[in-house]
Amino acid sequence: MVYYRYSKGDDHLNLKRIPEHIGVIPDGNRRWAQLNGLSKEKGYDHGIDPGFELFKECLELGVKEMTFYGFTQDNTKRPSIQTKAFQKACVDAVKKLLHEDASLLVLGNTESPLFPKELLPYTKERTNIGSGKMKINFLVNYSWWWDLNESYSVKPSGGDPKRYISNNIASKDISRIDLVIRWGGRRRLSGFLPVQTVYSDFYILDELWPAYKKEHLHKALEWYQTQDITLGG
Amino acid sequence: MVYYRYSKGDDHLNLKRIPEHIGVIPDGNRRWAQLNGLSKEKGYDHGIDPGFELFKECLELGVKEMTFYGFTQDNTKRPSIQTKAFQKACVDAVKKLLHEDASLLVLGNTESPLFPKELLPYTKERTNIGSGKMKINFLVNYSWWWDLNESYSVKPSGGDPKRYISNNIASKDISRIDLVIRWGGRRRLSGFLPVQTVYSDFYILDELWPAYKKEHLHKALEWYQTQDITLGG
Repeated sequence: MVYYRYSKGDDHLNLKRIPEHIGVIPDGNRRWAQLNGLSKEKGYDHGIDPGFELFKECLELGVKEMTFYGFTQDNTKRPSIQTKAFQKACVDAVKKLLHEDASLLVLGNTESPLFPKELLPYTKERTNIGSGKMKINFLVNYSWWWDLNESYSVKPSGGDPKRYISNNIASKDISRIDLVIRWGGRRRLSGFLPVQTVYSDFYILDELWPAYKKEHLHKALEWYQTQDITLGG
Repeated sequence: MVYYRYSKGDDHLNLKRIPEHIGVIPDGNRRWAQLNGLSKEKGYDHGIDPGFELFKECLELGVKEMTFYGFTQDNTKRPSIQTKAFQKACVDAVKKLLHEDASLLVLGNTESPLFPKELLPYTKERTNIGSGKMKINFLVNYSWWWDLNESYSVKPSGGDPKRYISNNIASKDISRIDLVIRWGGRRRLSGFLPVQTVYSDFYILDELWPAYKKEHLHKALEWYQTQDITLGG
């Protein structure tokens, strides 16, 4: 068991248990834009820096893997000005990640024209950057049905179905998620990795994603300390 | 859009939107037993009446379908005295349901010896009882991997993968869930119907399941009024 003690200025954190894998649903970009007098699509751009702050804080705390919900195939039904804006924000975020210590995987339906071509090089296998310390998974043009559907291309070999499913979905390189943190107040998964989240704990923040503060992460982690892990048992 | 106005004594409810399908995770039976000086396995029996109160309240409000999380294949790893107790509670609950207005389906892995044989007659197709007004799905010896695994027995025909998956999982007769209500404070799905819950709203009550009161349902429904439905869009 990891014991993590964090103390920096007024900021104290006592964590006995750090989730190995955190899933991030960075919701509320459009609502934040409107509240700040911007048109909806301008919000996504303001969601990039928060992602890096969160990533660095998690890296320092010893989190081993993070999965960011970039955009989904469901999202692409939105007006084209918004779709273009979140596609660009994802491309910019990945380019910026190329300067960090990460083992990067971009995952999503690359066969659709809505998948940004610039990100294709990061979809086949993990790209190790720097010391490649943390696994970062970036979901881009992802959908739950695309993910599950991939597993039908192989004929099941019998054996343990739990293992079979986990090893054959499109997101097979993404491990089980311990803690999902969602910004923006909605208490739902919105199709986020249905297999990896079957046992995850969910922590919802009412604050909108572009208003991220590290205190949000700390609140989520402090709450996580109080949860047991039963994996459904 | 349904407009439901409810007023009975001091109890007022103004609901514009009733979820068509509510998923119920009745957690906290063992904790409740211990708090009440009973051994853990005694809690399950106290979870039956709350289920009927909840069902009747939902029936009156016009809910069309409910799915109760009975027990899972994960749960059966517990001590045998507990396993026997929750198996019996599920059998007793179903027998009691046979006196209500419901279209009943029991769903779970019937090939395992842990599936209670008494419930086999209700697993093949819906049993209509009385006017069969509400669809009731009772998950018994269920697991997410058993559910998904079923869909591999058929060769995908191409076409829309979303439809293909929904139509071929073991729980294909259970529709998309609008609202999941979980008692007992845990903020997780614990493997509950991963496909039907991809877009569900989750409402968590800290109260333990055997301490159910209709006010819990009302709180959940009032909260549900404030949520938008985007189905991931």
